Amino acid sequence: MAGGSGTRFWPWSRGSHPKQLLPLCTTASMLADTVHRVSRLVPPKNVVVVTGEALRRTVLRDLPQLGRDQVLCEPVGRNTAPCIAWAAVEIARRAPDGVMVVLPADHVVTPIERFLDDLRVALAAADEERCLVTLGIRPTRPETGYGYLRGGGRLSARWPGKSLRRVAAFHEKPTESRARRFLRAGGYFWNSGMFAWRCDTILEEITLHLPELAAAIRSLETRRVRGRIPRSALSTAYPRFPSISIDHGVMEKSARVAMVPARFTWNDIGSWDAVGAIWPKDAADNASRDPLVAIDARGNVVATRGKPVALLGVSGLAVVDGGDAILVCPRERAQDVRMVVAALKGAGLGRLL
Amino acid sequence: MAGGSGTRFWPWSRGSHPKQLLPLCTTASMLADTVHRVSRLVPPKNVVVVTGEALRRTVLRDLPQLGRDQVLCEPVGRNTAPCIAWAAVEIARRAPDGVMVVLPADHVVTPIERFLDDLRVALAAADEERCLVTLGIRPTRPETGYGYLRGGGRLSARWPGKSLRRVAAFHEKPTESRARRFLRAGGYFWNSGMFAWRCDTILEEITLHLPELAAAIRSLETRRVRGRIPRSALSTAYPRFPSISIDHGVMEKSARVAMVPARFTWNDIGSWDAVGAIWPKDAADNASRDPLVAIDARGNVVATRGKPVALLGVSGLAVVDGGDAILVCPRERAQDVRMVVAALKGAGLGRLL
Repeated sequence: MAGGSGTRFWPWSRGSHPKQLLPLCTTASMLADTVHRVSRLVPPKNVVVVTGEALRRTVLRDLPQLGRDQVLCEPVGRNTAPCIAWAAVEIARRAPDGVMVVLPADHVVTPIERFLDDLRVALAAADEERCLVTLGIRPTRPETGYGYLRGGGRLSARWPGKSLRRVAAFHEKPTESRARRFLRAGGYFWNSGMFAWRCDTILEEITLHLPELAAAIRSLETRRVRGRIPRSALSTAYPRFPSISIDHGVMEKSARVAMVPARFTWNDIGSWDAVGAIWPKDAADNASRDPLVAIDARGNVVATRGKPVALLGVSGLAVVDGGDAILVCPRERAQDVRMVVAALKGAGLGRLL
Repeated sequence: MAGGSGTRFWPWSRGSHPKQLLPLCTTASMLADTVHRVSRLVPPKNVVVVTGEALRRTVLRDLPQLGRDQVLCEPVGRNTAPCIAWAAVEIARRAPDGVMVVLPADHVVTPIERFLDDLRVALAAADEERCLVTLGIRPTRPETGYGYLRGGGRLSARWPGKSLRRVAAFHEKPTESRARRFLRAGGYFWNSGMFAWRCDTILEEITLHLPELAAAIRSLETRRVRGRIPRSALSTAYPRFPSISIDHGVMEKSARVAMVPARFTWNDIGSWDAVGAIWPKDAADNASRDPLVAIDARGNVVATRGKPVALLGVSGLAVVDGGDAILVCPRERAQDVRMVVAALKGAGLGRLL
């Protein structure tokens, strides 16, 4: 899943270069990192990327190992359920018994070995138990930006220890006090948005819980010409798809949900602040991959694409140079970069978006 | 006087581009502004610029209206007394009865009309009274970075009101408590470093109070070839000149000192903080000449040579882009940019200096 046009990484992120296409984790894009990360389990020829029509060329340039048929371009974004339904149909055409793993293209996961181990369990469980497997992340803070899962008992005796569990309950993004209760209680997990299931399983469950979407997808299937759905058919049909997440639309209603508690470290780096957690730091906790001189400066994040920066007497700032524009804000305000994007439009600086 | 290699305007200022060659006040350099400002009293053909050998080409490019003979290049800096002595000799050769005005090339003065009026008084007094006239600035804060003058009585009945006064005393850079006393007492002025005198007067006073320098200059005079002192002679002689300011060396000792109390506004903009006082400000007191989006941001100074900047939730910062490097510091730490310059050398980033 490489749609979305995040604005929180301005001035790096632009309409034509959203977060998943930025080199926020390594020197490659997050999308390329995601494809590379699973390549031992999912060879590139088996990868399907769903993105926006506007990003088709950029994605193909970013992933030269992928064929044009492997990049599905939504004419408009309709949240994750339509995206996953379409991908499931496409993958099922190529591999009717296929098991698919769904990965957002903008997450950071380490170490890769543990991630692949967990994914192996998820794929095997999805295939053998015909269930919808979600990867649950052990929460490290009372985050209010994610949904939570409450872990249940073992799914069956076939799965050793607690490697595969039932999901006792889904909880939408909680208030901070509720999130604190979750943390204290234990047994709660973040809903990471990473899933594994057989294509036929998810399509069955979509038919059950989102019949309107299932019908729309089936109708679109009748429009294929030489195996492909023409853009014109997509442009007409897609805007009418229900805009709903796979969590709300399917996972919260399905009786076939299971969870693999992740043993890897996960970060969805939602802002420049979060980038500070994954980049190299100097002795004063300044996170940067650029030449940095820091004097009486502590806990800053610097992202200037190689341009040297001097910080003197400042703490907890994010300093970002996007080449044609600069952002300076406290790390704790990094979520509000959306406000900057709105203000730029108002100031006639829309060319910077 | 356009020597000096200030480091406080890094990353704009560089070895090859010190403060006086930066467009800090207008879109022209401070040096060009200075020449332009006095052009109604001192036509460009009468201007002599003293600078460092390393800046010769840059100065000539900056002031295309000046001939090569009008730019005197010191092989090494030796404070203001040698610089002024050499300039006085050169001007006296061209105009034996000449009256000269000495202006640092890196000050901001407004409004020009009042400045020129005060300068007219200073030039007339220098010519008619054969005195050393200094322009005294009424202090607006207990600044500890300047020397102070205490104003005395009228020099003679010929000068109306208090337009020309004696100087009762010179005071070196004071402590803050002493500076406060000066302000409370009244009658004290900042020593601006702007002077007017006849060439013969200042050379007489240099002979009297700095005989060693006078002798060295006389000896250099014997080396002229076709009217010019060869670079080789300068390179040998100049390093041996005493390094002393005209204030310490002459003004504080001379019996012929007078003062014109300035009626103009003066700013020697010694740092990025001071630039904030002269640049246009938005409603939240953010000073910038560049496209600026400021959200919950107050009292910042932004200098990015045209690059758009977004400030979110920050106050009192200086944000400077020099093209190949960025500085972020609180305005109140702007004086400490020297520390950054030292640290850059240590970090192997000397190419940015």
